[in-house]
Amino acid sequence: MAEYDRAVIIGVGLLGGSIGLALRQRQLARTVLGVGRNQPGLERAVRFGAIDAYELDLNSACQGAELVVVCTPVQDVIHIVEHCLPHIASDALVTDVGSTKRRICAGLADVAQQNFCGAHPLAGSEKSGVEHATAKLLERRLTVVTPSAATPPLLVERTERLWQSLGSRTLRMSPDEHDRALAQTSHLPHIVASALAAATPIELLPLAASGWCDTTRVAAGGAELWRQILEENREPVLHALEGFAATLAEWVRALEAGDMGQVEELLLAGKHKRDSVGN
Amino acid sequence: MAEYDRAVIIGVGLLGGSIGLALRQRQLARTVLGVGRNQPGLERAVRFGAIDAYELDLNSACQGAELVVVCTPVQDVIHIVEHCLPHIASDALVTDVGSTKRRICAGLADVAQQNFCGAHPLAGSEKSGVEHATAKLLERRLTVVTPSAATPPLLVERTERLWQSLGSRTLRMSPDEHDRALAQTSHLPHIVASALAAATPIELLPLAASGWCDTTRVAAGGAELWRQILEENREPVLHALEGFAATLAEWVRALEAGDMGQVEELLLAGKHKRDSVGN
Repeated sequence: MAEYDRAVIIGVGLLGGSIGLALRQRQLARTVLGVGRNQPGLERAVRFGAIDAYELDLNSACQGAELVVVCTPVQDVIHIVEHCLPHIASDALVTDVGSTKRRICAGLADVAQQNFCGAHPLAGSEKSGVEHATAKLLERRLTVVTPSAATPPLLVERTERLWQSLGSRTLRMSPDEHDRALAQTSHLPHIVASALAAATPIELLPLAASGWCDTTRVAAGGAELWRQILEENREPVLHALEGFAATLAEWVRALEAGDMGQVEELLLAGKHKRDSVGN
Repeated sequence: MAEYDRAVIIGVGLLGGSIGLALRQRQLARTVLGVGRNQPGLERAVRFGAIDAYELDLNSACQGAELVVVCTPVQDVIHIVEHCLPHIASDALVTDVGSTKRRICAGLADVAQQNFCGAHPLAGSEKSGVEHATAKLLERRLTVVTPSAATPPLLVERTERLWQSLGSRTLRMSPDEHDRALAQTSHLPHIVASALAAATPIELLPLAASGWCDTTRVAAGGAELWRQILEENREPVLHALEGFAATLAEWVRALEAGDMGQVEELLLAGKHKRDSVGN
């Protein structure tokens, strides 16, 4: 028996589409409805098998829904959840996939504490659109679940079970902890990749090989999406940038001094951290 | 008919092994000999099909050789070529795969100008070892061929034909131009990736997802190899670091000021450059 009678995915792109595919293939929901503003995109999502059907109207889609997954840009999450609340089933689970959590979880802590528990599946990509969605996107990935202090423990457990049933591992963190951590592991790498791409003289781009391509890959991500993420997480990101700039300054000092022993130390420090993560 | 009777590859790792596989599969050489100091590695290279046989002694391997490809770390190239010269065929072609070219090509311009023409196939990897070699490594890649002012035009053409016959496109640049360009497109990305990996707090590494992994991937490369590359190309690398630091400073200013319009401009600048390269 499907765990959810009516599941609603708001924003059916790469992540929303992948969640839809996984909900349907794993038979976790009897009906998966997509909601969005882009009708041709929603029609593609139906043909792609990511959703059973779509609605353009949020209220009617959410009527009696038992599961709502908000997959929109981060700055839309709060008002979308607020609009869903009057329509969903009283014990519905509402979660999201936003890359920042502090403002979203604080903004919904009072109004939606019986239904909403934030989450962030670490399974993004520089690609976008339902065409790149796959039911396997969350498999072997980590989803950070970010309850507020007031989130009922049972709701947190249901949220964790949902993300696990979609194939991912889960890790519980406070919204604050999450945002500080992701500033280091995701938002800083995005800025560094973007700055590196931008700093490459255009006439040298034909010489860009796999090293350049790997190091700058995430810079292809959507600028508007990333502006929102960086706006939400400005302070932790600035702190992460400070640490990175300090490491870079060590590099400049070592190279200016021609201290190749120190250069090798720096290379080894980076290699050890990188090797410990794998691929 | 094979173009080379006796081809010698000095240093049979990822690149040397891939060149050996391509020479053999494309029947460009009757015999491909490997040379190195690591006998078990050379035995693996024979079993892997990357070379027909191996020699531990450089002089006897090079006896009458018509093609020599030096695939060692950059700081070994000059003295290895000097040792080969008395033994090779008088019209032999000697080339290399070093990531820096200025010092190598200047050092060999007088002594080896009838035989040596430098090259750099842009086909590296953070992986190493003949086990990762593939005859396809050079296909659809670019090899920069870097003659000195004194290199005979016919030798330059033969060098270009060799790399083309191994599957790659070629581009001719002076050793100086090459090193300045690669400082931007390869050496700077390596430093940035290394600094980013090193600056990530160790307790946050479990949160590293695909973005972090891509952006730091090259930092897994060999520290000793990269120390040599950075030592050979210190000045152009420092210049590239300066440009990168200036872009990063724009980022810090925009974020500190909360100027999200400027942040989006910066994101778009990086995205445009990245999108123009593809994957």
